[in-house]
Amino acid sequence: MSISKNQLKLITSLQQKKYRQKHQLFIAEGIKVVDELLNSNLVLFHLFTTENQNNDAIPPNKTTLVSETELKKISTLKKPNKILALFKIPEEIKDKQKGLILALDGINDPGNLGTIIRLCDWFGIKQLICSKNTVDCYNQKVIQSTMGSITRVQINYVDLVSYITNTKLLVYSADMEGENIYKTELNPEGILVMGNEANGISKEINTFIKNKLTIPRFGPLQETESLNVATATAILLSEFKRTFI
Amino acid sequence: MSISKNQLKLITSLQQKKYRQKHQLFIAEGIKVVDELLNSNLVLFHLFTTENQNNDAIPPNKTTLVSETELKKISTLKKPNKILALFKIPEEIKDKQKGLILALDGINDPGNLGTIIRLCDWFGIKQLICSKNTVDCYNQKVIQSTMGSITRVQINYVDLVSYITNTKLLVYSADMEGENIYKTELNPEGILVMGNEANGISKEINTFIKNKLTIPRFGPLQETESLNVATATAILLSEFKRTFI
Repeated sequence: MSISKNQLKLITSLQQKKYRQKHQLFIAEGIKVVDELLNSNLVLFHLFTTENQNNDAIPPNKTTLVSETELKKISTLKKPNKILALFKIPEEIKDKQKGLILALDGINDPGNLGTIIRLCDWFGIKQLICSKNTVDCYNQKVIQSTMGSITRVQINYVDLVSYITNTKLLVYSADMEGENIYKTELNPEGILVMGNEANGISKEINTFIKNKLTIPRFGPLQETESLNVATATAILLSEFKRTFI
Repeated sequence: MSISKNQLKLITSLQQKKYRQKHQLFIAEGIKVVDELLNSNLVLFHLFTTENQNNDAIPPNKTTLVSETELKKISTLKKPNKILALFKIPEEIKDKQKGLILALDGINDPGNLGTIIRLCDWFGIKQLICSKNTVDCYNQKVIQSTMGSITRVQINYVDLVSYITNTKLLVYSADMEGENIYKTELNPEGILVMGNEANGISKEINTFIKNKLTIPRFGPLQETESLNVATATAILLSEFKRTFI
């Protein structure tokens, strides 16, 4: 067997959000990532692999054996790793989950979103709210960097302004001019908003946030750049959770 | 003016560690990063730019005006941003610095090292010890992601086994089987060792570490992947520092 022209066209198209949405499919690559997704609630659509997989989760009629050259053609990785799988995008669950909710206001970088989803998984954050202009969580780079965590966090893309204005929960944000995070009592049932990599929280949202938090800087006062959004998220989630140990 | 063949050859060679070491030069790109480095103790070797820079820190005899096409040729970025500069690699300072020392045992990814250097800068960690097999801090991807922090942290490449066995300081490490970081009293004059992205701390080093620390997992117990090394470093440095606020 090998890849048909139509399959090739489909797979390549899925590197773009509009085709992922049209076909309701996304790409995952490499043995480890694909394995984690196969062991989740996700539904496999089709799998392309350079060697037969001994895995009951993979029905033979959903497998195509391909050559290394073919895999290279369809892969988005520099070093393709034996498997490329297409999974169905699951239906969005819109339950309100308990505990701290993380909200992202315009995160652009797929690597950052991937890291943040892993952090949610680690810290038991069950719901991640993304503004509509946040990068798509089914982007292949996000999928590769979440390492399966994406199946354990409920992700919702919403109009963030209306979400923030309609909630009764306490809303926190990371802000250069906020209160010292180490000295603030944090409500474990709140919403924490993290802003865009370059511009921070957008003005429309910022107006509605009363609880601004700052990670104090210990380095030289001068012009130390702000922390990367993923590392700042790590520190803030750790602070929200540490008191409940 | 434009770029000579020899300049082109030199710049391209600097993408490799052995030529950086031979010429004792490294590459920095983009207005923001280059500006930060110009405002530091670093010595500019030469600068290539698409537009005249109004900057007293740039002597005219060290500037070459280039076309967008030429800049694209020498740039390592997808979107070159007006400037590529070569700086001299400063002489290594080997002072013992006060306070917590961070040590890296075989960090491979330049982006991770860059993020960790920024974290050191933020948290006032003055000394970063790297094992010889840790990625070179003058790698262009490290330089681009440190955003100038590299000029404010003393970085030493050492034989880490001999360093760890010869120190009188308390040595901590991040470990999946360690003590709960939130419940451990942390000595602010210790050494914190972070391990390789895939394999963690190497066996030779691990033998000598008595104080192993774990960031507790709050998510589902199953197979949540470990945290990325940069985010784990962020959380650990925050814990070491938060008590001194």
